[in-house]
Amino acid sequence: MIEETPVPLVDLDRLDRNLDRMAAYARGHNLHLRPHTKTHKSPRIAAEQMARGAVGLTCATLLEAEVMAEVSHDLLLAYPPVGDSKLQRLMALPESAEITVALDSAAVIEKLVDAARQHGRRVGVLVELDVGMRRIGLPGLEEAVRLARLVAAHPPLVYRGIAFYPGHIRQHISGQAAELERLSRAVQAAVESFDQAGVRPEIVSGGSTPTIWNTHEIGGVTEIRPGTYAYNDRITAQLGACDWNDCALTILATVVSTAVPGQAVIDAGSKALGREPAENQGDGYGALLDRPEVVVRRLSEEHGVLDLADTSWRPAVGDQVRVVPNHVCIAVHLHEMVYGIRGDRLEAAWPVKARGRRPLAASLGV
Amino acid sequence: MIEETPVPLVDLDRLDRNLDRMAAYARGHNLHLRPHTKTHKSPRIAAEQMARGAVGLTCATLLEAEVMAEVSHDLLLAYPPVGDSKLQRLMALPESAEITVALDSAAVIEKLVDAARQHGRRVGVLVELDVGMRRIGLPGLEEAVRLARLVAAHPPLVYRGIAFYPGHIRQHISGQAAELERLSRAVQAAVESFDQAGVRPEIVSGGSTPTIWNTHEIGGVTEIRPGTYAYNDRITAQLGACDWNDCALTILATVVSTAVPGQAVIDAGSKALGREPAENQGDGYGALLDRPEVVVRRLSEEHGVLDLADTSWRPAVGDQVRVVPNHVCIAVHLHEMVYGIRGDRLEAAWPVKARGRRPLAASLGV
Repeated sequence: MIEETPVPLVDLDRLDRNLDRMAAYARGHNLHLRPHTKTHKSPRIAAEQMARGAVGLTCATLLEAEVMAEVSHDLLLAYPPVGDSKLQRLMALPESAEITVALDSAAVIEKLVDAARQHGRRVGVLVELDVGMRRIGLPGLEEAVRLARLVAAHPPLVYRGIAFYPGHIRQHISGQAAELERLSRAVQAAVESFDQAGVRPEIVSGGSTPTIWNTHEIGGVTEIRPGTYAYNDRITAQLGACDWNDCALTILATVVSTAVPGQAVIDAGSKALGREPAENQGDGYGALLDRPEVVVRRLSEEHGVLDLADTSWRPAVGDQVRVVPNHVCIAVHLHEMVYGIRGDRLEAAWPVKARGRRPLAASLGV
Repeated sequence: MIEETPVPLVDLDRLDRNLDRMAAYARGHNLHLRPHTKTHKSPRIAAEQMARGAVGLTCATLLEAEVMAEVSHDLLLAYPPVGDSKLQRLMALPESAEITVALDSAAVIEKLVDAARQHGRRVGVLVELDVGMRRIGLPGLEEAVRLARLVAAHPPLVYRGIAFYPGHIRQHISGQAAELERLSRAVQAAVESFDQAGVRPEIVSGGSTPTIWNTHEIGGVTEIRPGTYAYNDRITAQLGACDWNDCALTILATVVSTAVPGQAVIDAGSKALGREPAENQGDGYGALLDRPEVVVRRLSEEHGVLDLADTSWRPAVGDQVRVVPNHVCIAVHLHEMVYGIRGDRLEAAWPVKARGRRPLAASLGV
């Protein structure tokens, strides 16, 4: 059907089912759903998410926000906008868009106040807490409350609440359920501290893919920002957060060499799949949709080596295979387009429109 | 100077020096230099390589070949073209381009003969040998000789020689010098076998970055295909195949959070740097050009975590840093453009023109 590989295929029936399931989960637990668009970077899919009741969209980059403003008037930039250029792009988003920013420093607040005043633009703010991931966010509540008050005192900024990302919690690992309970208590304690300090969070935005179906158990959470669920991937399946047949995106690849015994080389390497480790260490970089026991064991830039140790299947040069990547957000970012299929029929070709960054050349006058 | 990050910067003085050094090495040892364009994917840099005496260019993808045909009439596709679409694109390369293909199967030869006859086009062939890397290439000489004869018997294919890639040899590791000697004897033996079978290789194309400056010691080699040397990177420096101050490409990034003690978060994550392991296991994903002791310890999609354990330096939100990526070929592939600087002056903006693949939409009529 499709001659030229490597190319990302989206099973549209699975995509629909994945979008429906998350919308139903959020609705069923009275959680606002604000899908993270980093996974698909596609306004087409974002529009499907909005149509299923999402309250708005989450973006990590300015380009994502610019593209997603086409389909939603309520955008969360879940990333501190640092530097004049990013602030100018934020302010230049369509007037119709309500913007909220997640941040964790007074330095960002000061610059954001200046930009918002200059443009006379309301900007909502979530104060980012670190709940153990040790990436971004304030580990201490005192400092976090101080930032919330700083925001509240500086219109046209609007203090809206708190955000956190418990990406370190692996719910399927025994003993980690206790960690989810600890997190729940910590979030509740944070909400109380903010409340007592006069900065009650209207929005408590949190959750992560490994724990996504249990987010309603985290006391006080009002909003979830899942991204991966639209496509799912091998890691999500390994985490138990989706079934293998919920994986909607695969990389179609072609066998190009069987010269070395015990393996087959495909034309999808690290530049098509991404070199993302599996949830289980050393377990390759992807697996075949129809033969999950066949793992992409090694990667070069344009070569993926299929390990045939656990299968009697012996492919020939020219055979096509569909690889479920370990981490779909990274795989999608490596391609200009994704192609939608229903059964054997090619139905759609969607640009990965929010991929990358805006070239600087024009603004730099080179 | 440059506001918006993450963005790849190329130190043009270092680039010039790197290109000069390799050209001098090849000239000094009577080796033909056919640079691999996968690293920069830029016709502008390929033209500089040609101007310094390269005999032609190496490409891995059809898009690379299409773009590089602008600047060279002698192209090696070092990758088996499998499938009608790729064969058609190969045949559609400008008439002026002399094309050579590296392959390792009779299946590819058969299809290639058909396409070449249909288009009345001469296509050179190198038979790919596996010399221990276990990726692509024939492990056995008998089968390799058989393929060479098959090619020689099927004009307009032209048997031109053999290719190999000893990417598994790490010259700096003690005891591996012996492995280079073993490789040299194996290549010499291969050349003799081919010669005795009446298919003497006119071209013996080989070498890899870790052993690049010793390729002349591998008996019989006539041609080298280095790629990384144009930019170099942290792995190449760790291998001892370049100095730290030969690293010409860095990712300019901005500190966006210092909320968690002992670290600083920058806006270059796996979508800007690539998640490529260092030569020394567990040694992060890149390091600062001016402070190589500061390592990018962890990556999320848009976050890089700088480990401040080995430095007294404490950056502030808004500070800019330049990161030398572990594997530059992967980092470049994540960006639309690279920007050339000389000292503090921005001099050039070059598209990464051969990045990715040609969108299928047009040909599929979606």
